[in-house]
Amino acid sequence: MRAVMMYGPGDVRVEERPRPEILAPTDAVIRVTATCICGSDLWPYRGLEPLAATPQRMGHEYIGVVEEIGAEVRNLTAGDYVVGSFVASDNTCEICRAGYQSRCVHQVMMGAIGTQAEYARIPLADGTLVRTPAEPTPEQVPSLLAASDVLGTGWYAAVAAEAAPGKTVAVVGDGAVGLLGILAASQLGAERVIAMSRHADRQALARRFGATDIVADRGEAGVAAIKDMTHGLGAHSVIEAVGTQGSMEQAIRSTRPGGHIGYVGVSHDVTLDGAELFFASVHLHGGPAPVRRFLPELVELIWDGVIVPGDVFDLTLPLADAAEGYRAMDERRAIKVLLTL
Amino acid sequence: MRAVMMYGPGDVRVEERPRPEILAPTDAVIRVTATCICGSDLWPYRGLEPLAATPQRMGHEYIGVVEEIGAEVRNLTAGDYVVGSFVASDNTCEICRAGYQSRCVHQVMMGAIGTQAEYARIPLADGTLVRTPAEPTPEQVPSLLAASDVLGTGWYAAVAAEAAPGKTVAVVGDGAVGLLGILAASQLGAERVIAMSRHADRQALARRFGATDIVADRGEAGVAAIKDMTHGLGAHSVIEAVGTQGSMEQAIRSTRPGGHIGYVGVSHDVTLDGAELFFASVHLHGGPAPVRRFLPELVELIWDGVIVPGDVFDLTLPLADAAEGYRAMDERRAIKVLLTL
Repeated sequence: MRAVMMYGPGDVRVEERPRPEILAPTDAVIRVTATCICGSDLWPYRGLEPLAATPQRMGHEYIGVVEEIGAEVRNLTAGDYVVGSFVASDNTCEICRAGYQSRCVHQVMMGAIGTQAEYARIPLADGTLVRTPAEPTPEQVPSLLAASDVLGTGWYAAVAAEAAPGKTVAVVGDGAVGLLGILAASQLGAERVIAMSRHADRQALARRFGATDIVADRGEAGVAAIKDMTHGLGAHSVIEAVGTQGSMEQAIRSTRPGGHIGYVGVSHDVTLDGAELFFASVHLHGGPAPVRRFLPELVELIWDGVIVPGDVFDLTLPLADAAEGYRAMDERRAIKVLLTL
Repeated sequence: MRAVMMYGPGDVRVEERPRPEILAPTDAVIRVTATCICGSDLWPYRGLEPLAATPQRMGHEYIGVVEEIGAEVRNLTAGDYVVGSFVASDNTCEICRAGYQSRCVHQVMMGAIGTQAEYARIPLADGTLVRTPAEPTPEQVPSLLAASDVLGTGWYAAVAAEAAPGKTVAVVGDGAVGLLGILAASQLGAERVIAMSRHADRQALARRFGATDIVADRGEAGVAAIKDMTHGLGAHSVIEAVGTQGSMEQAIRSTRPGGHIGYVGVSHDVTLDGAELFFASVHLHGGPAPVRRFLPELVELIWDGVIVPGDVFDLTLPLADAAEGYRAMDERRAIKVLLTL
């Protein structure tokens, strides 16, 4: 089968690899029908994060059809259309039952397996995969694929930030996760959703996803703008979807005392000052999103046409052109790239 | 009147000072009937924090009798017995109404006024002071005084850590706040409350306040002990009541994914690693405790004899002997010192 491999910074190739097989009786193998490139894939692409192997399999987002199941898989059969999270989880352990499937005691990171490929082995298939009601239409595919990570992660950020009716939510980061955090905050009933973005195309998408206001300023000026819009108090809720020192500080300083920060940008070289955090009096919660917690609800919202998160994909390429997809995202020519199979 | 003044590290004196007067129409002046020395007073005493002035007035905990009120004070009259928080707050602004009176938009830190004195001016008296049902008995005084900060702070930590039935709560720090965090967690119905302490007298008090288990190990060994007691997962809730790098790391590493940390130890030279916090997947909330939020409930629990937080005072001295009180706490001969007037 063909699979995307990264050999080093800027070096992505599509190569022939052995088709995955069932290794554990709880595994399934799916035929991937769509996958995509994640903002987090850009960290090693830009040389800002080491590769786990050379070459490294890539991809952790996927939608597909069950091809084969292990002997202990109970809830799936070949032919089922499924979507799963970027973390495989048993969905039965104490941590999963508390809603933190991304920290399942048996968790397997799908990125280590690689889903930018024609087939993928899915560990803990019963716990990990969620069936769609039927074969999705071509229009539904991008939205269901988005649920696999960026929508689920943005949704988690909005939940962690306690976006809700009557609240003002500020969103730091206008990548796919930030944009879908806007969609989530809006769906969760937030009164005001402030997108922090300086790119016209992303501002437009933010509006479409429910942003009521746009702030183009960053850093201290961005914080001041949020304060100005909230009687000097700061936002009730802030979604942080970048993962840098600047974005975390912007998030903390934009939040009112007692407010909530949902942070989902994978943290890179961030150190938080204890005293600043202490006197900020905010709630801080985040980390790798337990997407599985939200998947059944998200699939339903997509199926019913209530949300169209697939609009976040602004470039679609065949898997064979994955290298061009990475370049487009790296050069910010694309927000998020869908790869067809 | 006599008041406690700090001239520098280790140099505490009781001196004659002018009696405070009403400055704003929302002020009250109270005759202090009992006050105490706080663990946070030891930071400047030990030279680990600069003095705000030389000499600096000391004290922010108090119970007393209203002596005089300003023209705009509506809810109090001379002769009322009152307790208040270490932060004066209007209790009407948006932040107060959200339960964060310690970050009131008009907040005044009582430590800047000094309550280790015969009289104290209380700003924003209507918002700050809570009346006791009647004149307290001598047995009730220490408990009501504890509500002013250490009980209120420990209670807030337990609430921030979401201590509740069915949960295991670990408490980092065996000072007065940590010990009263144990009392709070127990009152809030926690199934298991683990006190982290290596001092026999504090362990005994922890047991009296509701600790079900004691862990004497600290640092990584302490974390390992908590993991061992929780199927390798970590505690659901952790109260942090120290404020050092080590105590924060111990708290973060002792908490299970999805668990809650309530941190109330005033942060000193702490930096948190963003990536560690991200992958810990914990909820982090704390800061200066909004004691005023809890005061009515705490006064009632004390009045009804449900809780006896005053047991945390293990040394009582007249105000004139404040210097000895500071020495006793600095040398760990006393957990917390009550000063009588």
